Amino acid sequence: MTDVVVLGQIGRDLVLWVDGLPDAGGSVRATERRELLGGKGANQAVALAQLGVPVALVGVVGDDGPGAQARAQAVADGIDVSGVVTRPGTATALLLDLVGNGGTRRLVEHVPAGVLLTGDDVAAADDLVAGCQVLSLQLQQPGEAVRAALDRAPAEAVVVTDGAPGDAGTRAAVLARTEVLRADAVEATRWVGRDLRGVDDAREAAAELLTAGPRLVSLAAGEAGDVVAWRAGPGLGTAAGMLEVDPRWADGDTVVPLLGGPPVDPTGAGDAAVAALAATLLGGAGPEDAAWAAAAAAALTVAHAGGRPELSPAAVGETVHRYRSARASG
Amino acid sequence: MTDVVVLGQIGRDLVLWVDGLPDAGGSVRATERRELLGGKGANQAVALAQLGVPVALVGVVGDDGPGAQARAQAVADGIDVSGVVTRPGTATALLLDLVGNGGTRRLVEHVPAGVLLTGDDVAAADDLVAGCQVLSLQLQQPGEAVRAALDRAPAEAVVVTDGAPGDAGTRAAVLARTEVLRADAVEATRWVGRDLRGVDDAREAAAELLTAGPRLVSLAAGEAGDVVAWRAGPGLGTAAGMLEVDPRWADGDTVVPLLGGPPVDPTGAGDAAVAALAATLLGGAGPEDAAWAAAAAAALTVAHAGGRPELSPAAVGETVHRYRSARASG
Repeated sequence: MTDVVVLGQIGRDLVLWVDGLPDAGGSVRATERRELLGGKGANQAVALAQLGVPVALVGVVGDDGPGAQARAQAVADGIDVSGVVTRPGTATALLLDLVGNGGTRRLVEHVPAGVLLTGDDVAAADDLVAGCQVLSLQLQQPGEAVRAALDRAPAEAVVVTDGAPGDAGTRAAVLARTEVLRADAVEATRWVGRDLRGVDDAREAAAELLTAGPRLVSLAAGEAGDVVAWRAGPGLGTAAGMLEVDPRWADGDTVVPLLGGPPVDPTGAGDAAVAALAATLLGGAGPEDAAWAAAAAAALTVAHAGGRPELSPAAVGETVHRYRSARASG
Repeated sequence: MTDVVVLGQIGRDLVLWVDGLPDAGGSVRATERRELLGGKGANQAVALAQLGVPVALVGVVGDDGPGAQARAQAVADGIDVSGVVTRPGTATALLLDLVGNGGTRRLVEHVPAGVLLTGDDVAAADDLVAGCQVLSLQLQQPGEAVRAALDRAPAEAVVVTDGAPGDAGTRAAVLARTEVLRADAVEATRWVGRDLRGVDDAREAAAELLTAGPRLVSLAAGEAGDVVAWRAGPGLGTAAGMLEVDPRWADGDTVVPLLGGPPVDPTGAGDAAVAALAATLLGGAGPEDAAWAAAAAAALTVAHAGGRPELSPAAVGETVHRYRSARASG
């Protein structure tokens, strides 16, 4: 039984620590290397599994060794991979992360067109999608796949989306069906069609997006943290619908600061945050608790190299407690 | 039945084409990717197999997916991998090759200590080493492994070495037992203990090395090409020993220019050259023919991205013919 179905990229993270970049024609030695299950979809699914939520992943790997390894690692992480497609004749997505002295990071991404989801891939995962409580869509996937998933989402499922589609048609379809919408600073500008500078702009954008459909909107606002806004109504968890308006879901918003120290590696912050939002809301918590859990999950993920989350309910809870109580008393 | 046993590195080449390097904190998309069997030992073994020579490889991979893939690719290339060790708890060597606009190349190498050959690895390959006609040693491997291989080489085997050991003891052991010695420009300075500038210096160094044991010495001399020098005696091929002095093996030397156009990727040139030297001499040819075949094999290898050779006897023969006849008539 799967609570959350995630549609998104599955691939591998290759992290290499180097003393510096080689000059043109030159070479350097890497001092350390890690190869991890990666990709935004896989990272989010791993985070959900670590938070104790039964999760299935719908995504595409190539028919190569790295694809087989990615699938095997996802299984080891407790993820249902029955919706993961192995595409003949394509290579699995690769995210190369070069870590230099002082922690500077440079990413080289290779995402062959063949590992993007198609409408047919989504149709083939119909059993998973039709049975889920939360459908989490990564909007970096093609609009065709996103719209196919929205069409198939059961009426009672909570739809969570991350990103901003490039085309207006898909943006409209997403807004009309999404309960929980998250976007980073660049994606937020695409949603509202204007530049956003600072917290006030982000809060205004979130309010605007709330009027178009979503119940909760979370927008990254740079160094200020996340602006999270929500509309009144019943809760979004499995026990939702008991009350017409959950008292914690009165109209509101909050700004949750970036938690933790300076990031070691920003990769995966958004994926962990979305996973924690979904897991917390699914568990019946209110929007403010979910917003803090998301910030904590992001902070725990950027504290190490590579996008792979290393979460637990206890670690998220402790991080929330430390910073939220500090703010309450500060 | 194996004619040549190669001791050296086996790993994987990961070649990524990028429009530019990412800035610190930034990312770029790779437009293309290739993953190939790589490492100096594997490249040399592949070249020998492509030239029709039965070859076995002694080297170490990690107990990971890339190690299993490297081994499988070597088998597909027709290489005897019974001497390839899978080392528990280590990662397979990785050679990352970032190809930028205009063909600029930057290498990032990750060679964990665990994938270097030990004396025990060589002892475990005793059946292979004891039965070979040519033993080809890559001197980038630890001195302990190189000395163990030299100790086990059958008296009648031709020993071919590439590189220059870091320690004087191993250098002395190599010189005492090597018939065919190749070194690039940097390694050549280590052999003679002084800087070498230009062809005359390289010719002098080759003559000096010939007096210390080898029958044939090939030293890269930068843009000038390769200086190849040899001592009189019987041929080194399988029919050697019939004549006390093969007439083609009177004392001599030659300079073979760099063949072909500007290199696309210099990786693997030396490995292909050593393979062609060994294959040609094993076939009974004289030193000058072998020197030209080596230059042709190098030229064919640097004409494409990645260190993996793409050779055939016909391609090597045609390349030699085109350039050698041009020089003879020029």
